[in-house]
Amino acid sequence: MRVAALAGGVGGAKLVDGLAGILRPEDLTVIVNTGDDFEHLGLTICPDLDTITYTLAGLANPETGWGRSDESWSFLETLETLGGPTWFQIGDRDLALHVERSRRMMAGEPLSVITRAICATLGVKVRVLPMSDQSVRTIVETDEGELGFQEYFVARACDPVVRGFRFEGSQRAMPAPDVMESIHGADLIVFCPSNPWVSLDPILTVHGMRAEIAGKPSIGVSPIVGGKALKGPAAKMFAEMGFHPSALAVADHYRELLTALVIDTADASSTDQIAALGIQPFVTDTIMTDRAARLRLAQEALDFAAELELAI
Amino acid sequence: MRVAALAGGVGGAKLVDGLAGILRPEDLTVIVNTGDDFEHLGLTICPDLDTITYTLAGLANPETGWGRSDESWSFLETLETLGGPTWFQIGDRDLALHVERSRRMMAGEPLSVITRAICATLGVKVRVLPMSDQSVRTIVETDEGELGFQEYFVARACDPVVRGFRFEGSQRAMPAPDVMESIHGADLIVFCPSNPWVSLDPILTVHGMRAEIAGKPSIGVSPIVGGKALKGPAAKMFAEMGFHPSALAVADHYRELLTALVIDTADASSTDQIAALGIQPFVTDTIMTDRAARLRLAQEALDFAAELELAI
Repeated sequence: MRVAALAGGVGGAKLVDGLAGILRPEDLTVIVNTGDDFEHLGLTICPDLDTITYTLAGLANPETGWGRSDESWSFLETLETLGGPTWFQIGDRDLALHVERSRRMMAGEPLSVITRAICATLGVKVRVLPMSDQSVRTIVETDEGELGFQEYFVARACDPVVRGFRFEGSQRAMPAPDVMESIHGADLIVFCPSNPWVSLDPILTVHGMRAEIAGKPSIGVSPIVGGKALKGPAAKMFAEMGFHPSALAVADHYRELLTALVIDTADASSTDQIAALGIQPFVTDTIMTDRAARLRLAQEALDFAAELELAI
Repeated sequence: MRVAALAGGVGGAKLVDGLAGILRPEDLTVIVNTGDDFEHLGLTICPDLDTITYTLAGLANPETGWGRSDESWSFLETLETLGGPTWFQIGDRDLALHVERSRRMMAGEPLSVITRAICATLGVKVRVLPMSDQSVRTIVETDEGELGFQEYFVARACDPVVRGFRFEGSQRAMPAPDVMESIHGADLIVFCPSNPWVSLDPILTVHGMRAEIAGKPSIGVSPIVGGKALKGPAAKMFAEMGFHPSALAVADHYRELLTALVIDTADASSTDQIAALGIQPFVTDTIMTDRAARLRLAQEALDFAAELELAI
């Protein structure tokens, strides 16, 4: 089964890791959100690409959800003594990736080419694609005005009340090479349990993506469990956007796109309402506490999709 | 006594450290070569400014002559695994300075302002000035063609035969703020024991510098001792440029500028020839093996200058 997975950061990376443990590398493509990329310290930083890449390389820090586990902090400590901005935490090893990527971008290489090269050096065999080689920047419209995503997410700790989102550049952003081909050639599109508003929506706004995905069998995994997000501001965003945060709200959010949605046992009572939206619900334990749980959840999602004859 | 010192890297930094141990901070200005600054990994790196700053801050690595003593290497190790360029060694803490400086330069701050701020955070009280806020880049003309200075110096380990030097941008480079004022207000100009060709000549080519310095009492310390440079390619450069490397050659190089020159006891036989150039020689042990030696040499140079009634 050929799968194209849409993913953001931590939750997405976990399910991608599960899928990578089941599928052959040539049968899995991960299309990654770049809307929360940003420029910092003169570097272009791609948090979701990094989380996916580090996770697939076995280098991710399981404690933080970002950065590497084998990290040292001399750079940031020294930057602080020099009076530099330290609100965004960058370890010494993590920094090497940002510097090398930025160096190659400044030399004119597309992000997709750089990502492929970095994955190769880290032994990542699965195809990891940025959603676009053009810059898309998620802007959070809040009651305190517009904030760049990282400013909202890290510097402001998701505190301002959200009124909406804008994906700057997405109107002119073309899918990166192989993105459309991988979706077109996939038997199944997987919507990873990433934040619908700021992780997967940016991917869906890239030119032509929504239409291409709408024509394919697809299965999502709800990032909202028991009314809460396991990590990050997804539930808070749903509430501030006027929706009760729930697996049902996730289903509704993707109504015109999803064929099936995996929801947690905690949300089993929503199955009928989700089915009423034309989305087939599948109930299981969706909390990926360890690698075995990632593999199991990925397998269950693939099995359910196959069972629905969505895919070969 | 108010002193303006012209300095490049290691040897210059040692004498500057000696001067800083004797003079009041407000009486010493160090004008630093920026000709060997370069762009690397998307960063602007200023090796001589760094060596001077780290030395005055007590952070310099005495083993290498560059970088910091309290260093870690996670960044460079990781950059290597990612296939990035590692020919120029940058430690994790050193990198923080390059990143912070580059960040501020990209934001439009002049190098002199950034240098002042960095010195303040590191507790450096002496005034350290880049020779210019405009870019000057030393190009080494070799028998293998033109090479950027760091390419020649680090990547090629000074191997190519030197035919000449070019200081790109020096024709339009203006002295940084306070540079001319500090020379004008100085009782004595000190030519530190830095490479004449690639450390002090770039400073002298900045617009108006040579004329301003020529009108002032000045004393140099020869970087050539017993026909050799203590560190770096100065002796090799003299030979390849057609001069026998010696303290006399150094005197001749600065003939129209220097009032006095401190030479090593190993070169005592050259005193008459140096005097014949109109430069007053002073013979002593010039090898600064420890801090006491830096202080002693600096004191002897200042005393000799005072004795010559060059300065108050």
